[in-house]
Amino acid sequence: MRLPKTVAALIEVFEKLPGIGPRTAARLTYFLVNQPDSLAKQLAAAAASLKTGTKLCGVCKNIGATNPCEICNDSGRDRAKICVVEEPQGLLAIENSQAFKGLYHVLHGRIAPTAGLGPDDIYLKELVARIKSGKFKEVVLATNADTEGETTAMYISKLLAATGVKLTRIAQGIPTGGDIEYADELTLRRALEGRRKY
Amino acid sequence: MRLPKTVAALIEVFEKLPGIGPRTAARLTYFLVNQPDSLAKQLAAAAASLKTGTKLCGVCKNIGATNPCEICNDSGRDRAKICVVEEPQGLLAIENSQAFKGLYHVLHGRIAPTAGLGPDDIYLKELVARIKSGKFKEVVLATNADTEGETTAMYISKLLAATGVKLTRIAQGIPTGGDIEYADELTLRRALEGRRKY
Repeated sequence: MRLPKTVAALIEVFEKLPGIGPRTAARLTYFLVNQPDSLAKQLAAAAASLKTGTKLCGVCKNIGATNPCEICNDSGRDRAKICVVEEPQGLLAIENSQAFKGLYHVLHGRIAPTAGLGPDDIYLKELVARIKSGKFKEVVLATNADTEGETTAMYISKLLAATGVKLTRIAQGIPTGGDIEYADELTLRRALEGRRKY
Repeated sequence: MRLPKTVAALIEVFEKLPGIGPRTAARLTYFLVNQPDSLAKQLAAAAASLKTGTKLCGVCKNIGATNPCEICNDSGRDRAKICVVEEPQGLLAIENSQAFKGLYHVLHGRIAPTAGLGPDDIYLKELVARIKSGKFKEVVLATNADTEGETTAMYISKLLAATGVKLTRIAQGIPTGGDIEYADELTLRRALEGRRKY
């Protein structure tokens, strides 16, 4: 059986999105076929206007509604601290935690030699230029806690060593609600290494 | 930080799709922001025209380009056999296997009392009417192999018992490439019960 053209077309677009395989793409598409037309229309409208309202911040490389972005423009922020994240989603997660009130730098990627991604593929020299301006006292490295995130943090720390800026790395340990019994060895080791006075 | 309106709008639509939570919705949206504008535009166009090219087949309830659908119109099909599936995706999977050349009936759901879904919520009386026409010799029950799928198959078999039509159920057993050692007990039991002469 040949699929209706419009069904095949949407499946094909969905398959181009990360983490969506052929089966999920078909499931999402048929879900939309079975919903009132308005949901597909909402999706169409939102996708069509996605880029018109978004700008890459020229300062921190966050995706915002303005350039410079809302955070870079916010005079209430601690402008001596800068938090380095891999992606805008990481920035959002930290903002939602309300535990950081400084500025950000979004790398838009990570150093991943096995995937052919080197220092020049992310906004790294822009970060170095910002730090060398001397305006920052602390750089919080909040790249992910996986191999590539660690590599990236390590690379940045070496690049910035000569500037004398204080470098910190977000803590690794047992996640809140986590069970020690089920934690992997590396997480436990990091949790022990990072233990603090109680 | 407030998200750019257009980003928030697309995240909100993605979250309405099955199996997509807030984090995946954000990941998909930022992926589209970072891609050339054409991909978001492709998604917009495909979603906008999704329904124009699709019709619910009045006979088998499949989603097709025409009504009746391509399969119901195909004179080369074995019109004495009918395969009952839960969703159009199930029909597609069986078509791709090329192991069935009869007609179909798509229920668009299953009987799931815990989710408040009863026999009247799916195209069941339409199935009964088709079988009572006396045109079919065999009904292949190809609902899923989970609890609700089994319940639905059982319910249909009771409904149709009086018609005298031959009822069959697709086999359960070890999936091709599967390792007996890792098969769960119920699958193994079904595989043994369903053993055939070699």
